[in-house]
Amino acid sequence: METHPVIHLEREALRHWCNGDPSGFLEISAPDVVYFDPFLSERLNGLDKLTAYYESIRGKIFAPKHEMIEPCVQEIGDAAVLTFRFNSYSGSEGAQMRWNCTEVYRRTGEEWWIVQTHWSLTAQG
Amino acid sequence: METHPVIHLEREALRHWCNGDPSGFLEISAPDVVYFDPFLSERLNGLDKLTAYYESIRGKIFAPKHEMIEPCVQEIGDAAVLTFRFNSYSGSEGAQMRWNCTEVYRRTGEEWWIVQTHWSLTAQG
Repeated sequence: METHPVIHLEREALRHWCNGDPSGFLEISAPDVVYFDPFLSERLNGLDKLTAYYESIRGKIFAPKHEMIEPCVQEIGDAAVLTFRFNSYSGSEGAQMRWNCTEVYRRTGEEWWIVQTHWSLTAQG
Repeated sequence: METHPVIHLEREALRHWCNGDPSGFLEISAPDVVYFDPFLSERLNGLDKLTAYYESIRGKIFAPKHEMIEPCVQEIGDAAVLTFRFNSYSGSEGAQMRWNCTEVYRRTGEEWWIVQTHWSLTAQG
């Protein structure tokens, strides 16, 4: 499952993200996407809410060095559950950031769309 | 979707969990379950790992007062993505704990099994 198409989509979106550009994620998120991250006090429901949030931080996040760790994909029909850790270094958010991430993708025709995103901070090992 | 069967399953498992009993979750988790929480430095892969972890905290977590907030279910064929916040009060972990949670369930026949769990801490509002 290391070569599953959603891993490629995610890596591309992250590459944009770490260069200040949230469009990579917005362009592959479905209208009904739901979203958690550790800076929000509640879940964001829907692409409009996510777009407003991401546009507010456009151009502010940079992490030239980053890595996706142990991506795992569980496919259930037209759903693909991608889990991974993500570390970034020497970026705008500090010397090192360590994240857990769950992305749920839904296949429509030949395309995969994110319907659920959950980012959180990994405990220090 | 407020009445989706996975919400009922989750509430029952949480009721046990908040009374020191992790069996409610273990009994509905699939062999290939993957698991994130904010106290772990990496993802747990598989029911054996999750069982060992949960058994290590059996009888230690109590939260008589708790609530599931805004449960949302996105169904994709035999997958159901449940997201919610969860607050507990006056329990073993402190005056108030605030959580984000994503559970992905997979249907096999008539039964739903957890294949992915992601717990994290909600930002203070």
